[in-house]
Formats: sequence, C-alpha cells, structure tokens
Amino acid sequence: MTKANVRVYKDLMGENEKWAEETRKLLKEKNIVMINIIGSPGCGKTTLLEGMVGELGKIFRFAVLEGDVETTADAERIAALNIEASQLLTGGACHLEAKLVHYALKDLPLDDLDMVVVENVGNLVCPAEFDIGEKAKIAVLSVTEGEDKPSKYPLLFHEAEAVLLTKIDLLPHLDFDIDLCLDHVRKVNSTVPIFKVSAKTGEGFVEWINWLNENR
Amino acid sequence: MTKANVRVYKDLMGENEKWAEETRKLLKEKNIVMINIIGSPGCGKTTLLEGMVGELGKIFRFAVLEGDVETTADAERIAALNIEASQLLTGGACHLEAKLVHYALKDLPLDDLDMVVVENVGNLVCPAEFDIGEKAKIAVLSVTEGEDKPSKYPLLFHEAEAVLLTKIDLLPHLDFDIDLCLDHVRKVNSTVPIFKVSAKTGEGFVEWINWLNENR
Repeated sequence: MTKANVRVYKDLMGENEKWAEETRKLLKEKNIVMINIIGSPGCGKTTLLEGMVGELGKIFRFAVLEGDVETTADAERIAALNIEASQLLTGGACHLEAKLVHYALKDLPLDDLDMVVVENVGNLVCPAEFDIGEKAKIAVLSVTEGEDKPSKYPLLFHEAEAVLLTKIDLLPHLDFDIDLCLDHVRKVNSTVPIFKVSAKTGEGFVEWINWLNENR
Repeated sequence: MTKANVRVYKDLMGENEKWAEETRKLLKEKNIVMINIIGSPGCGKTTLLEGMVGELGKIFRFAVLEGDVETTADAERIAALNIEASQLLTGGACHLEAKLVHYALKDLPLDDLDMVVVENVGNLVCPAEFDIGEKAKIAVLSVTEGEDKPSKYPLLFHEAEAVLLTKIDLLPHLDFDIDLCLDHVRKVNSTVPIFKVSAKTGEGFVEWINWLNENR
C-alpha cells in the first residue's frame, strides 16, 4: 500500500505578519533599508529625526513615515526640512500595523530611495510587538524618563538593534545615573549598541549615522 | 387581545465594563474614592506619588495600586514609604483592565481606607480607553515631553478630571513654552484644572492635594 500524499495547509502567519512579509519583499526588491523608531511620547523621536536629516542626507536618499494617533504635526515638521514625509494615523490604536505601513510605502518614490525611517506611535509597549517589515527596531529613551525603563518595558529593548539615549544635554540638571541605566539595558540585551545623543548640541549623531551606514 | 410581555435581554456591557461597575459599587459601599493616574513612561507618576504621600496622608487614609508590564519596582518604592501598595502586572498588556484592578482592590483593607490611588501602565493611549471603575482619570504630562502631547493623544486629556504638569523645576533648562502647552490642553478640554508641580521642590503639591480633598 502506497501512502497517499496529504496536503497540509496551515495559516502560518497572521494578517500582520503577511503584510510585514510583503513589505520585506518589496524593500529587498528595491534595495531599501527600513528602520522602525520606537519610544515614549515626548522622548524626542521627531526632534531626533530633524537632527539626523543633515548627516543622514550625506549618505542616504531617505523618506520618513510618521505614525501618530492623531494630528499631522510630525510629518509637517519633517516636510518643512524638504524631506519626503507621510503621516500614518492609527485612529486610536497605540501602534503601527504592517498593512498601513505597506500602503504608505508603496506611495513613496521607492526607486529614488535607499532608506525609509518609520517613527512609530509614542509608546514603549505595543509597537515592539508588531512587526512592520522593518530591518531593525531602534529604541529611543530620553534621560528624563528614569534609568529603569528598559527593565519595566523589556520587550522593546530586547528586540532593538540599537538604543538611542536622547536629551543627554540635560544630564547636568537631572538625578539620572547613566551607568545604572546602561545596566538596565544590558540586563535585557547584553550586546546592543547604545548611542548617547543630543539633538540640541548635535553630540553623538555622527556615530549613530555611521552605525546606520555600516549596518545597512 | 392583550400583548404578551416580552423580556428583552441585551448584553449592554462588555466584560471590562461589568468589572468596572462592580468596582464602582464596592467603592461606593465602602465610601472610598479611587483615582486613576495616567501618563507616559517616565513622566514622573511614581515620583509624584512619593511626593504626595506626606500631604495626602494628612487628609486621607490611602493605598496604592501600581500597574506595570513587568517588575515590582514601583510598588516597592511606595511600600518603602510605609504605604500599603500592591503591584498589578499586566503580562505584556499596555494598560490596566477592570478585572485585575477589582481583584487587587478586594484584597486591600477597605474598611480602613478613604482613597485608592491607581498608577496605570506608562502609556498615553490605551489606559484612557479602559474604565477601571475610578472616580476620576488624572492625566500626567512632564514638561520634558513637549507642548503638543495633549493634541496628539487627545482622548486622555479629554477624559481627565485634572491635568498635572510635572518636572516644572526643569523649565529653565528646556525650550518648553508652557502657554502653548496649556493651549493644547484647552483645545481638547476647555475646563479641566491644571496643576504645575515639581516633586523635586514640592511646588504645587498643596494645591493639587487640596483639589483632591475638595472633589472627593
């Protein structure tokens, strides 16, 4: 008796994963790197982007996708710097999902780009749980938020390919123990590179952009 | 012909609303006020609580429920001040739900309390969407987060019975336009009282605690 062939179907991927996979294919085809910047509301993600524009523009042709619950303020800030920027509104949801990102991506002039920078909704929890097809998640933590956040919101810091510690110009005015904060990062991710940056003084941006270039 | 009585059943409330309603009944029976403190990670919610303990203790017998994704660090900080504190871990969820709060509440010595202060998970989006049976949501925004957050995360500021602007001792070191921030609050909630506080200097705490006393 010969065994009959049995076809097995299994929904291996949920809806979000399917769109993330579509996006990864598209980005590969177009040779574009997409990074997903995640951090608390007010940790300085948009200001970081504004500060990056000069150095990043020397190396990459890039566009920005701005995720927010409401308002188009962030995309307008980036567009004011003459950078292609789209606003992705989640309509109440606390994170970006892959489908919305995919549709926004397809409307970009992909043949003229090397990089897409996504700024996720300000939130340390859910954006880390949703794959949007990015090459790397980048965790942003401002020194005004306290040292313990990597332990309290470990998933993001565990998943991150790089951690940016922002607003370091404020350190002289804060009771912030930077070594203690680095310990908290190391506990959940022992090898992740950490960049200390200040959009106000420009400190740390060259190192951070160089890392992006080396790891594209 | 007489009309037959028809009993109509409708699931008017979802699971979360049912537990919130149970909590409201329990709090009313015990004559306890429960407030739900909501703000970004690192906006200073736990430090605010630490700073409130002295003034609050003059008026209320109170306990604290600490919401976090992971770690018991916050409840330990409050317990170190000799205040009854429980840690509510969401196991990945970015907000507290009413059922968990209800169970934690029932384990408190309710006959000896006038107030329960809940510190929600650090997040400006979802905690505002989940009724936990509280009397009032209190929005916390630190001046390091930027002026526009009330417009970008309007639900919380719309729902809030009071807004606390924290870390105001840092104002001399920031490019933060406090009037612009107040405009953003007023746009989504024209009447909410706004308290400017600093846990470092103690500024604003008497006014804030007096408001709690007058509105209990």
